[in-house]
Amino acid sequence: QSSVTVFGVLDAGVSYYTAKSSFYNNTSQPVSLPQTPPAGVSRSQTVMSNSGTSNSRLGFRGVEDLGGGWAAGFWLEAALANDTGGATLFSRRSTVSLSGPIGEIRVGRDFTPTFWNDSVFSPFSTIGVGANVISTVSTNLAVARGPGSATAASDNYLRTNNSIGYFLPPNLGGIYGQLQYALHENVSQSGQAGSPSHRGQFAGGRLGYAAGAFDIALAYGESVAADTTGLGATGQPNGVNLDEKLKTLNLGASYNLGFMKLFGELSRVKDQRTSTAPGATGLLLTRDDDTYNGALLGVTVPVGAGLIKAAYSRVKFDNDLGSAAGPSRDASVDKIAIGYEHNLSKRTALYVTAARIRARNAQNNPAVMGAAVGTATYLSTGTGTTGYAPARSTGYDVGIRHAF
Amino acid sequence: QSSVTVFGVLDAGVSYYTAKSSFYNNTSQPVSLPQTPPAGVSRSQTVMSNSGTSNSRLGFRGVEDLGGGWAAGFWLEAALANDTGGATLFSRRSTVSLSGPIGEIRVGRDFTPTFWNDSVFSPFSTIGVGANVISTVSTNLAVARGPGSATAASDNYLRTNNSIGYFLPPNLGGIYGQLQYALHENVSQSGQAGSPSHRGQFAGGRLGYAAGAFDIALAYGESVAADTTGLGATGQPNGVNLDEKLKTLNLGASYNLGFMKLFGELSRVKDQRTSTAPGATGLLLTRDDDTYNGALLGVTVPVGAGLIKAAYSRVKFDNDLGSAAGPSRDASVDKIAIGYEHNLSKRTALYVTAARIRARNAQNNPAVMGAAVGTATYLSTGTGTTGYAPARSTGYDVGIRHAF
Amino acid sequence: QSSVTVFGVLDAGVSYYTAKSSFYNNTSQPVSLPQTPPAGVSRSQTVMSNSGTSNSRLGFRGVEDLGGGWAAGFWLEAALANDTGGATLFSRRSTVSLSGPIGEIRVGRDFTPTFWNDSVFSPFSTIGVGANVISTVSTNLAVARGPGSATAASDNYLRTNNSIGYFLPPNLGGIYGQLQYALHENVSQSGQAGSPSHRGQFAGGRLGYAAGAFDIALAYGESVAADTTGLGATGQPNGVNLDEKLKTLNLGASYNLGFMKLFGELSRVKDQRTSTAPGATGLLLTRDDDTYNGALLGVTVPVGAGLIKAAYSRVKFDNDLGSAAGPSRDASVDKIAIGYEHNLSKRTALYVTAARIRARNAQNNPAVMGAAVGTATYLSTGTGTTGYAPARSTGYDVGIRHAF
Repeated sequence: QSSVTVFGVLDAGVSYYTAKSSFYNNTSQPVSLPQTPPAGVSRSQTVMSNSGTSNSRLGFRGVEDLGGGWAAGFWLEAALANDTGGATLFSRRSTVSLSGPIGEIRVGRDFTPTFWNDSVFSPFSTIGVGANVISTVSTNLAVARGPGSATAASDNYLRTNNSIGYFLPPNLGGIYGQLQYALHENVSQSGQAGSPSHRGQFAGGRLGYAAGAFDIALAYGESVAADTTGLGATGQPNGVNLDEKLKTLNLGASYNLGFMKLFGELSRVKDQRTSTAPGATGLLLTRDDDTYNGALLGVTVPVGAGLIKAAYSRVKFDNDLGSAAGPSRDASVDKIAIGYEHNLSKRTALYVTAARIRARNAQNNPAVMGAAVGTATYLSTGTGTTGYAPARSTGYDVGIRHAF
Repeated sequence: QSSVTVFGVLDAGVSYYTAKSSFYNNTSQPVSLPQTPPAGVSRSQTVMSNSGTSNSRLGFRGVEDLGGGWAAGFWLEAALANDTGGATLFSRRSTVSLSGPIGEIRVGRDFTPTFWNDSVFSPFSTIGVGANVISTVSTNLAVARGPGSATAASDNYLRTNNSIGYFLPPNLGGIYGQLQYALHENVSQSGQAGSPSHRGQFAGGRLGYAAGAFDIALAYGESVAADTTGLGATGQPNGVNLDEKLKTLNLGASYNLGFMKLFGELSRVKDQRTSTAPGATGLLLTRDDDTYNGALLGVTVPVGAGLIKAAYSRVKFDNDLGSAAGPSRDASVDKIAIGYEHNLSKRTALYVTAARIRARNAQNNPAVMGAAVGTATYLSTGTGTTGYAPARSTGYDVGIRHAF
Repeated sequence: QSSVTVFGVLDAGVSYYTAKSSFYNNTSQPVSLPQTPPAGVSRSQTVMSNSGTSNSRLGFRGVEDLGGGWAAGFWLEAALANDTGGATLFSRRSTVSLSGPIGEIRVGRDFTPTFWNDSVFSPFSTIGVGANVISTVSTNLAVARGPGSATAASDNYLRTNNSIGYFLPPNLGGIYGQLQYALHENVSQSGQAGSPSHRGQFAGGRLGYAAGAFDIALAYGESVAADTTGLGATGQPNGVNLDEKLKTLNLGASYNLGFMKLFGELSRVKDQRTSTAPGATGLLLTRDDDTYNGALLGVTVPVGAGLIKAAYSRVKFDNDLGSAAGPSRDASVDKIAIGYEHNLSKRTALYVTAARIRARNAQNNPAVMGAAVGTATYLSTGTGTTGYAPARSTGYDVGIRHAF
């Protein structure tokens, strides 16, 4: 006797992306502009995209009533690359749950609490060319600096493996919330300094309040990106250590006025590194405390069977390093996006989205500030002194979304 | 509320393959035959095969009625290697559709229009030891020369990624047809000669007429196999360019006489290469225009709950190169196949198939003419002058097919 | 018209493993103990585990009634790593069947007959920290010495690809049984000595009797682990040959007394190698005939909605080599496990299990005797003379199992 629901989304469209880079010179010496390619270089690409307004997916889920208000359930959700026939089972979510009057315990692979504010309080969620740029930067940061996992390089930002979650029950007068802890699974060995490494561990939570037209939530999470203790030839600590944590704090809210719905988010992500190395007079300590401040304002307006969407989002990178990082350290990206979805039914919609990113001094942090629209990539030859820097990126999605 | 149909086929059998090679000498000098191994070398293999008469698959599909004759639908179909427990999601088809009175728009990964004639107008389709040899050669050609894709090396022959298809509506008095365009997705960079490359692009269509016992269809498709523009150190074109297209034209028909059904197909595949290189007096141009002419004749005869099948198919390779290709350029393969399927029900059948391939001068084009039955591979040491050449290959399938 | 059942299990828990190694010295000379790390080294790990009491899986299966007592059916079962969102389609089972009054023919990827006794006659089956240690050792042996397959290194112990199975019909008065043959699929080439290799071939069977509270079964299987014939430069045999077979014989039984159920198993696995090499007076023959003798005693006791489980299992390794293998050749592992499962419903249970392995002289056969609990690994630097040897391993599982 099976009680499985097969569900999913296929979202496919045609997208056009451009990414323009411009030559910059942060030195005091004039630099003769290169002739080929010219001072400004533009790249563009037309692709079939999946997941323009909803992530393509295939899932299996079920709930069993255990009586007395208790239930067991499972959720297996694969990501689909339906443009090329690809599927990743079950990278989106893979959990088993026990829920009751006191809440839900959920274990397995799941979304992080901090991700939800980036997703829920954004008119375009974190999807398509209109995606919340806070999410784009945080994904890039997780890939560049985070611990990742065998499942995905962006893990511990978007999702975590090996997680234990607790969710408040739904009957708390509008208060909702969750806690999540993800095991690092590293091996501890007796007599070995710094063992076990905590790399990969995640801990976070989210608390929200939804009542009528209003919804607000605060989330915080810490991901251990590095935790290494150098050992010498005899197994003793040699003082070469590195600790790095990615700490995310964000606050999101939405307010539904009926004729329109407003969205807002504030986000602060800190990349804190502490490294030590042996020096002449003891351990030399280096601290690097980078900050990514993000903000989003958005609106959706229902128009008959359609929905107009617009959003502005930005991230400012505050580099903790000194002048070695170059004369202009205040890198930033901002993004505007506008779109329209036309519902053919509750399950099927056509959509069109346009978005533009503007990057400033992004050469100072290419891994993070190289945020572009879609899969467009900037020509980036810069080291912070002279070269090509990300400038503008635009993108368009036209497609269909079908849920089942 | 889910509306998903889970469907599929498991087809498994035991197959025996042999591939015999024989020594050849295209030089004017006598060559002393090697003693070990002898002048004729035979390879054989007994395997558990999947997909003897129907490709093993697992799929999920659904249709949503949108009213007014319109519908949305999705189709996800994975290939199964059920002999070893393998599955490739969703390499067979991965599409979302919008259909209505004026036809269907279908986007994603799908079969090419030109593939259908090879498949539909062949008693053994393109499956098992009896497979249409036109399909075997075209698959080999796509793997050897085609653009392929991350999904499959044979892509743009059998299927394409990133495709947009249009299908005529079904109520045109027997006329049916489709158009398909597949995006190349390559990046264009400003100021870069020959950018973007069109490698991977596919465009084609098919037009048919089915009325009563008669069915006929014509298809044409072009796949861009190579499109490279050589650039010098300064980014300027250096004249070393290559353009290669695979152009397929085929015509298939079937006629059902009741007591038997006749099948026929004609196919012409051109592999056209144009390359340039700088010479003393300007660009040197080289053209190579290889042709693969194929034909098939087949018949099926219903006998009670069973079906007898027989087919003859052949491909002749016409090498455009001069004498450098060796004295005997008219390579060819022909194949005869006979089989019997016994239906235990509408969904389940037992089957047995036998087939034999004969290859002539196939050493001149091992990648393409090395067509053998099943996974048997010829011993092929030839360079066109002296060595071992493919000679004969035989194969047998005995198995069960079960659809669900 | 689809007739597919979607089924599965999600089993997830938190597990803690330790593996302690101790320094040993099999030489007559005293060895100064290393200072760092100390004489005894312990490793530990806390992980999210899947499959603590039941293997996590997702499957699709169906049966079609063909009339007259005959039926066709299919079974596709994937393994799930739900802690990290992983899935392996369809590594657990991938078969199509035809069954009738005279039994069932089943083809594809399936469990071996010999595996079933290790699984069925063990209170903890072969799963979680309480797993039958006979299975742990046999899995390690298959990985280290067996032929494996592209699907799994442990193949031909647990499962086989390319198998043809026959199962007795269910109406034989309690007698049940099966035969299985798995094809090696290797290529045979004419004139090539020792061709084809039979590496990968499996043949085995199982015969049992179940009546009322009593169940007993005997199984035997042979796996060809190596079958190589050395060839010289001219393709003639050079006398350097290796034949290796893994032969498994086991007998299991259970008796259900109502208030408790008893389990027992005896197992003998032989790793028989015969190698030849050219010597001064002809071929030098080397035989190596290692034996792994296993035994298990277990009990389960129902307590209300719960089930207490306990098991003792052991394997003794009898090394056929002479003194070259070191002074203490009689390596062994024994394991005790105790657990409790609490059923919340027929489909959902909570469980806790604890187990301890003790290893003796396991340095003589690290690949096989390095059996530890869960994913804990011993520090093993030994070569049989001096170094670190596996000593003790303990493990705990706490989790939830949910079937659908």
